Amino acid sequence: MAAVALVQGASRGLGLEFCKHFLTHKAPSAVVATCRNPESAMDLAALAAQHPGRVTVLKVDATREDDIKGAAEVVNRSFGKVDLIINSAAMLHPTGKGETSLRDVSAEGIVSTLTTNTVGPLIMAKYFTPLLQKGSGSFGRQPLEKAKQHSGIIVNMTARVGSIGDNALGGWYSYRMSKAALNMATKNLAIELGRGRPKVLCVSLHPGTLDTDLSRPYHRNVPKDKLFTTKHSVEHLMAIIDGLNIEKSGKAYAWDGSELPW
Amino acid sequence: MAAVALVQGASRGLGLEFCKHFLTHKAPSAVVATCRNPESAMDLAALAAQHPGRVTVLKVDATREDDIKGAAEVVNRSFGKVDLIINSAAMLHPTGKGETSLRDVSAEGIVSTLTTNTVGPLIMAKYFTPLLQKGSGSFGRQPLEKAKQHSGIIVNMTARVGSIGDNALGGWYSYRMSKAALNMATKNLAIELGRGRPKVLCVSLHPGTLDTDLSRPYHRNVPKDKLFTTKHSVEHLMAIIDGLNIEKSGKAYAWDGSELPW
Repeated sequence: MAAVALVQGASRGLGLEFCKHFLTHKAPSAVVATCRNPESAMDLAALAAQHPGRVTVLKVDATREDDIKGAAEVVNRSFGKVDLIINSAAMLHPTGKGETSLRDVSAEGIVSTLTTNTVGPLIMAKYFTPLLQKGSGSFGRQPLEKAKQHSGIIVNMTARVGSIGDNALGGWYSYRMSKAALNMATKNLAIELGRGRPKVLCVSLHPGTLDTDLSRPYHRNVPKDKLFTTKHSVEHLMAIIDGLNIEKSGKAYAWDGSELPW
Repeated sequence: MAAVALVQGASRGLGLEFCKHFLTHKAPSAVVATCRNPESAMDLAALAAQHPGRVTVLKVDATREDDIKGAAEVVNRSFGKVDLIINSAAMLHPTGKGETSLRDVSAEGIVSTLTTNTVGPLIMAKYFTPLLQKGSGSFGRQPLEKAKQHSGIIVNMTARVGSIGDNALGGWYSYRMSKAALNMATKNLAIELGRGRPKVLCVSLHPGTLDTDLSRPYHRNVPKDKLFTTKHSVEHLMAIIDGLNIEKSGKAYAWDGSELPW
């Protein structure tokens, strides 16, 4: 059966680029693209129109458990499985600006960031795991040994600034904390879903420093050659995903394949 | 001026034991004890009655930013400074039972756990940092070099299960994620508050496996000699706190002084 890839947070940035990649590089595949407001997701609508019958756009606000549950039911009826989920939706902070100091921190801002960046991906995992367990293992590299093969993959988009061990500058409290907690979710998911069979893999990936809405305000100090287009980033990330197997589950990798410290 | 120690989550368990310790071992010191419901905190009230004039009990729900802000104003008027804050309040999960599998995970449960265990301590740090910066450095070990001396210390109670690198069993999603995010907060606070002067230190501490309400349901597999009384744990933790200096800030330590991986 054709591969089914689901991209959560598909209206723009990295999520939209992942959709493009699957549609142009992985044929014949079905793409399920979720976003908060499909009505205003013009780029996604245009992409879907270019690839008739291949893109299913679903309205999912990742902060609403009912939305996620409903989307899983639709995908189950339409495809009966998923092979890969990319949890891509994230915010730096509800104000659009990461906290530069403790003074900028608010309970409301942290909770909101945690809900979107951390809780959303985990609730996605909860409702889509049964579908990933029915996956065909179309992504990643399957080992010969049948007992080690996987049916599906969960990718949580993390960020280098979500590494506690790598943190030398501080700031961005909400964003950093949300990604550290997400990395714990990745590890927990890898452990639970790697037991028994069918196996589902889970990794955190750092896309590099991107030219997207989320990070654009913070590029002044980034050398030109370190600033990626989303296309360049997705090509690197897909190379990692294509090489994934059970041994690589439960870890965080940067775009160049290097393992990130927790 | 006499040492001022603040214990958040002081009504029972480890927090109550820290209060006892300060009152019996660190004289003359003032103890500020915060908890959600002082009216029902009988053990804390009894302790305060045994040490007249030394304990200030304040009602603080750590999920309410206004409570924390108000408490900081009271402490500022009463003492004008704080030397040590112990962020001790935590829950395993609002149901009292950690998730054994992904099926048990709910958005509501995670958000609630993150709000108490992670957001609360960080908002405490936000409002009490100005008071810690006016601290006398009564806790920890001051180096001779003046530029490296500290005025105050923040202790975030973490747990070994909050270490991503140490996680081999999975489960307890909400609790593990909340403590991983809290460890990131510790690192961020240590960086920001260790710059310039006056310096405030921040560490995460793992108390060992305790005989408290939080962890009692999970003791079946813990060998008797690994199960601590809160008194035993606090004695160990105070030995670590007594040895803290700027070089040790921004890390997580277990009760025996060993550094925990992130």
